[in-house]
This record gives sequence, structure tokens and C-alpha cells, in this order.
Amino acid sequence: MNINVLSLFPAMFEGVFQQSIMKKAQEKNAVSLKVVDFREFASNKRQVDDYPFGGGAGMVLKPEPVFNAVESLTADKKPRVILMCPQGERFTQKKAEELAGEEELIFICGHYEGYDERIREHLVTDEISLGDFVLTGGELAAMTIIDSIVRLLPGVLGNADSSVRDSFSTGLLEHPQYTRPADFRGWKVPEVLTSGNHARVDQWREEQTLKRTLERRPDLLEQIELTTHQKKIIEELKKQ
Amino acid sequence: MNINVLSLFPAMFEGVFQQSIMKKAQEKNAVSLKVVDFREFASNKRQVDDYPFGGGAGMVLKPEPVFNAVESLTADKKPRVILMCPQGERFTQKKAEELAGEEELIFICGHYEGYDERIREHLVTDEISLGDFVLTGGELAAMTIIDSIVRLLPGVLGNADSSVRDSFSTGLLEHPQYTRPADFRGWKVPEVLTSGNHARVDQWREEQTLKRTLERRPDLLEQIELTTHQKKIIEELKKQ
Repeated sequence: MNINVLSLFPAMFEGVFQQSIMKKAQEKNAVSLKVVDFREFASNKRQVDDYPFGGGAGMVLKPEPVFNAVESLTADKKPRVILMCPQGERFTQKKAEELAGEEELIFICGHYEGYDERIREHLVTDEISLGDFVLTGGELAAMTIIDSIVRLLPGVLGNADSSVRDSFSTGLLEHPQYTRPADFRGWKVPEVLTSGNHARVDQWREEQTLKRTLERRPDLLEQIELTTHQKKIIEELKKQ
Repeated sequence: MNINVLSLFPAMFEGVFQQSIMKKAQEKNAVSLKVVDFREFASNKRQVDDYPFGGGAGMVLKPEPVFNAVESLTADKKPRVILMCPQGERFTQKKAEELAGEEELIFICGHYEGYDERIREHLVTDEISLGDFVLTGGELAAMTIIDSIVRLLPGVLGNADSSVRDSFSTGLLEHPQYTRPADFRGWKVPEVLTSGNHARVDQWREEQTLKRTLERRPDLLEQIELTTHQKKIIEELKKQ
């Protein structure tokens, strides 16, 4: 997969794109990551923004440098062009899976200001938001989304880190986990986990998974098909 | 404000913490950012993770290196200790504003694996998730949240970038913005914006703000108190 990012701050990407899974994914040729400074595509003295028509505070990103930069990357291809913006569709794991199936992606990251509407109307295929909060620019949102996509590409994660047991793959929150020492400062691991009785461990984990999801994210329980056994456990939990 | 981050990949933060607003905020002494590699606090051969009690795939972060690293930073202080995890409370602008009022924050970023439950129970004050998607680690989530907090600190943003007109400050999505050229490849700016009639511009923008919010995020309309005038515009829009 080829991922191109348009940004006015390409140096922001250096640390993230050169570490951990992102580094490994590039070494394995699972992904090629490129950051383009779209200031270089502004014809007029490298100017990328201008005052809004109709007046008002703040600056607006001009259409021309963004169109030119995207077109320099696409030629005869028609990849998805993703605009990072707070007005976009909220990013989810489902969207990550969908985008992981593409051969090429282009991300556009604004900084401080708004986008000229013609970028939205005539260049962009997807508008994505990370959530209801405000960032300095789209860069961190793009890096976050790229991380979630790259880890899903074939061959990127080893078996040990497999994405199969991911937090959202079952539609429920994970049960509590414990590791050594069994007693840390007097706080002990639940007895069942050191019992060696696998059936009891499995039962405890299933209950804890449902308990945690019920307490923290009851909305998730309504989005999946629960087994009769799971429904019974939830009934019991609600009584307590 | 002092922000400390615990991570096994401190180099991931270099690009982001040394650019743009984050760089300026540190130069202005509005914030001090420090990344601590908690592997250095593992007593046993720098081992930070171990197999889960009760069996199963994946590794679990040990409590000891995380407790030791946090305690090396806190001494007699009791700062908020924030765990980045998919099971946490979803991050919002309201949470950013709340955290921006603190004097000191500590972020804990796991990588690939789960956390020993005793970290949650006895060390952490807040568990935060960026949304329902899976990342390689907590680093990008922490950087994103730190960006959204730092830009709210006094003196960080200039007037031009003021956070007052932020996307979520009015509770509605922003109207479309346009800048030069008025005609880009035959796509023209709406006539009203070049009319010079401020009253008409204001009216158009109010309508467009409500239209966009109605189309993309009707949920936001239920969270704010609309004026009679706004309600009338929405009625009209619904008829169309």
C-alpha cells in the first residue's frame, strides 16, 4: 500500500514513521509512506492560505496548492483522498478495515485554519474526524489513522501481536489481565487465575468481559448478538 | 504546566514535540514536556512485560516498572495519572478543557499489550480512549490529547489562531469557507460572499452552519439551546 500525506509540517511525522510497527511495516515493504509539503505547490510566493471571502477571523487554505499537490501524486490513478477535519465522519475500526483494503491513500492535513470549500467538493472522497475535540492540525489525526490501518496490512503484525484478539474484534471490552508478581505490594492476583483450572479461568474471563462492558460501554452490548449464556450472565450481573 | 509521558518508544515523540504550536508552547514556557522510557525502571533485566496469569495469547505490562516510573516523577505531589487505553472514557473537548486546568499530568502509554489490572486499580486516576479503533500503542493517542490540551493553555495561541472560534466552541459545525481565487477552475465562490453586504453574509453563514450540522451531525443540535430564530431556520431546512 502507498500512503501519501500532504502537510505543512512534514517534520512532525519523522518520529512516528521511523519507530516500532510503522518502521517494521516499511522494512517489510507492506507500506510505503511519503510526506509531501504542499507549500511547495503554491505558485504565488509559497502562499498557502488567504483571508476568507465575506470577512471574519482566521485564514483559509487556498485550493490551488492542495489540488496541485494531490494531482502531482495521482496522474492517471484515482485513489481515495481523505481530508482530516472535525466536521468529518467519525473514525472507527470498521473504517480502518475498509481503508486497509485500498492500494493507495492520500491524506490532507490542514493546520490552524479552515479549508476552501472547493477542496471538499471537488477533490476529496472522504472527510474523517478523530472525535469531538480540536487539534492544532490534521497531522496527529492522520498519523493515528495511518497507524490503525498499517497494523492491519498482511504480514505487519507477528502472531504474538495478532490483531485477531484486538479490543474491538469481539465487540466487547477485554477482561482484566494480570502478570507476575502474583503479589505486588500486597495486591494479589485473583485466585482463579493461578488455580490451573482452565474451565474456571475461561468462565471468570467471560464474566469479567461482560461485567466490564456492562459497566463502561453498555452501548456495545446492543451492537452484537449475545448468546443465551451471555444473556444469562448479564441478567445475573444486573441483579448484583 | 508539566506533562510527563511514560513510553517504551520515546523517539516517537520527537517530531511532534519539536514542531509548530508544541514547539512554541515550550519556548514560551507555557508547558514543559518530558518523555520517560519506563523500561529503565524495570528491575529485572529491563523486562517490562510477562505472560498473563491464567494463560492466553499476548503479553501484559508488569506493574513494577510503571509504578516505579510514575513514583520517580511524583514525590509528594498527586498529579492526575492518565492511562491511554481503548476501554477508557472517550476523549472530548470538555475533557481537554478540564485537563488544561491541571498543573501536572502524567500519561502512561502501553504498546501492543494489555496492562496489569493493578495499574488501573491503584495508580491511575483517568482512563482515556480516543475512540473505537485499535492502535499499535498509546503514544499517538497521548500526543493527540496533549496537542489538544497545550493549545488551550494561556498565551499559546496568538489572536489569529484563537481557540474562541474553534469548531466545537459554538456547539455547531462551521459554515463553508472560501478564499481567493473567486473563480478556481470554473468553480465560483457563492455570490453573497463577495457582495460586500455584511448582513447577508452573516445570514448565509448562520444558515449554512445549521444546514451542515443538520446534515452531518444532527446529534449536536440536541445538545445546545437553539434560539427561536435558529429553530425557524431549521424548520425551513427540513422542508427543503
